[in-house]
Amino acid sequence: MSEEDVVLRVMKYLSKQSFGERLGPGDDARDIVPRSHRLIVSIDGYSVESVKLPWRDLSDIGWCSVTSAVSDVVSKGGFPYGVLVSIGIPRSWSLSDVDELYRGISEACSFYNCRLLGGDTNSAAEAWISVAAIGFTSNAYPPSRGGALDGDALIVVGTYGPQGVVAIDGFRASSELKWVVEATKRPRAIIDVATVISRWSRAIHASMDVSDGLSYTLYIMSVSSSRCIELSDLPLYVKELEEYCGRSTECIAERVLNGGEEYGVAIAVDSRHLNRVLKEMDAMKIPFRTVGVVRNCDKPGVTYKGMSIKVRRWDQFYGWRDAKDTY
Amino acid sequence: MSEEDVVLRVMKYLSKQSFGERLGPGDDARDIVPRSHRLIVSIDGYSVESVKLPWRDLSDIGWCSVTSAVSDVVSKGGFPYGVLVSIGIPRSWSLSDVDELYRGISEACSFYNCRLLGGDTNSAAEAWISVAAIGFTSNAYPPSRGGALDGDALIVVGTYGPQGVVAIDGFRASSELKWVVEATKRPRAIIDVATVISRWSRAIHASMDVSDGLSYTLYIMSVSSSRCIELSDLPLYVKELEEYCGRSTECIAERVLNGGEEYGVAIAVDSRHLNRVLKEMDAMKIPFRTVGVVRNCDKPGVTYKGMSIKVRRWDQFYGWRDAKDTY
Repeated sequence: MSEEDVVLRVMKYLSKQSFGERLGPGDDARDIVPRSHRLIVSIDGYSVESVKLPWRDLSDIGWCSVTSAVSDVVSKGGFPYGVLVSIGIPRSWSLSDVDELYRGISEACSFYNCRLLGGDTNSAAEAWISVAAIGFTSNAYPPSRGGALDGDALIVVGTYGPQGVVAIDGFRASSELKWVVEATKRPRAIIDVATVISRWSRAIHASMDVSDGLSYTLYIMSVSSSRCIELSDLPLYVKELEEYCGRSTECIAERVLNGGEEYGVAIAVDSRHLNRVLKEMDAMKIPFRTVGVVRNCDKPGVTYKGMSIKVRRWDQFYGWRDAKDTY
Repeated sequence: MSEEDVVLRVMKYLSKQSFGERLGPGDDARDIVPRSHRLIVSIDGYSVESVKLPWRDLSDIGWCSVTSAVSDVVSKGGFPYGVLVSIGIPRSWSLSDVDELYRGISEACSFYNCRLLGGDTNSAAEAWISVAAIGFTSNAYPPSRGGALDGDALIVVGTYGPQGVVAIDGFRASSELKWVVEATKRPRAIIDVATVISRWSRAIHASMDVSDGLSYTLYIMSVSSSRCIELSDLPLYVKELEEYCGRSTECIAERVLNGGEEYGVAIAVDSRHLNRVLKEMDAMKIPFRTVGVVRNCDKPGVTYKGMSIKVRRWDQFYGWRDAKDTY
């Protein structure tokens, strides 16, 4: 397998359509005509091993890498338009491995209506993948992580549980559970959320994508906003979790709050506009729940029914750890 | 060293200025206000080992990774505006290694007047780095690699030689040569070329950056354009190469044509507009030489003084090889 073999294989998957563009796939760079007065851009990377759940094949890894970059753009109200993918390939890979990875990348791009614009291939001791996403928004005020205000309602988009089972109960237990395997094989970002965030951006004071676990997301939002988040409800979770947990509310809460890669969005909304935002969410069939409220306080943090929650996150270097140790 | 330690360290280097932007460093994504009606985007990646010449430290690697992505944008007439950087860090690295890498990234961004917008950090068995560059051009016709026409003059921007000595004569011989070490430690892309390409884009039929060796660049341009490139001269090269080669023209030509990472640009220009393009190059003090001409022919390829040249390229998977084997 030579570099040209890989490049020619990758080229098959690149977008050949032209929307006012002059440069095609395989050139030094791609040209894009801006679709709006503001771009939203993001980059995300992985060592392939770190996202390789036993039931994920290389096409699933490709899917996940695009989903992760797209999710960042969506959480700021951007519509993903194109992705650029850089990969490191071990010498042990075959061209069919390259194909499998790019099939997943390509399927994710189709699913998100987003174009695979270009990329770059490298040899590596260990496989890695890096995805840059470029999106557009017509909204002049993309919400930051840190803008939540006293009295804001907190909405969590997405359905939780399966990733928490993987994180807490491990691969072996999870691989026996069809509902866990199916939900975590190819997580999906919800593109329509971008429409709501973009349309109601003056009422949406803060938003953040849920990629490292919900407790961590809410904690960072709380710290960045210098305010407390008080949860009175859990977000939507899969019905199988109740039986799995024997209806133990503690077991359920732990798995809902400490997953990761769900690619939902946590959103703080001005309560005066809440009903209109929720109505729009309903109209677009976006799964969400209003889970709590933002309050002024002395020491930022997240509580659930009045109790401080344990904030865990996946640390790239340490593995799972208590996030509060680190702030 | 935890992920937060790394992220906090990286944050120090991110652009905190706002040019009409609402999102700051460290958010899920960055927002950018387009400066033109066309974007030029590119991504480039490396395994750090593969670019680690013995005399390059991590700051030089950081510099090179930005230079490489910026060079792609420049070769299409784009002005680099911002970069996003994703890195894989081995557990053996310390925070001062992270600092050193980002110091180089940051120095390159300053040199190219380009902003470090954001990034992503990951753990990895082997260090890797991926840089996405976003640029703007006011030009509706960025030149592709494949547009060269019969009669076009071929201009090569940049000064060659030292990288060829590294590629052909090896690290040990090169490390003794101050002029080789100095030129290859931190190669520089020439941003002003973007001005010329953008301004004269209707006269510039094709352009390509010189990142994998000049012979390979010209060969790809020739194949993509389905035309022959006939060289009558070598591009500019460093004066020390003459003494090094004992004035052997073969030795000089081999090292000038088979380097890599020079980050010059090969440009095919409509001969009717050549003088005006050259005048602009001179006015901007861009180092270049007109080296030959593009001709219609049956079998694309590159000749130098009538002889077919050996086309070598660095293959990520095979090392140095004859590029003609692969097309």
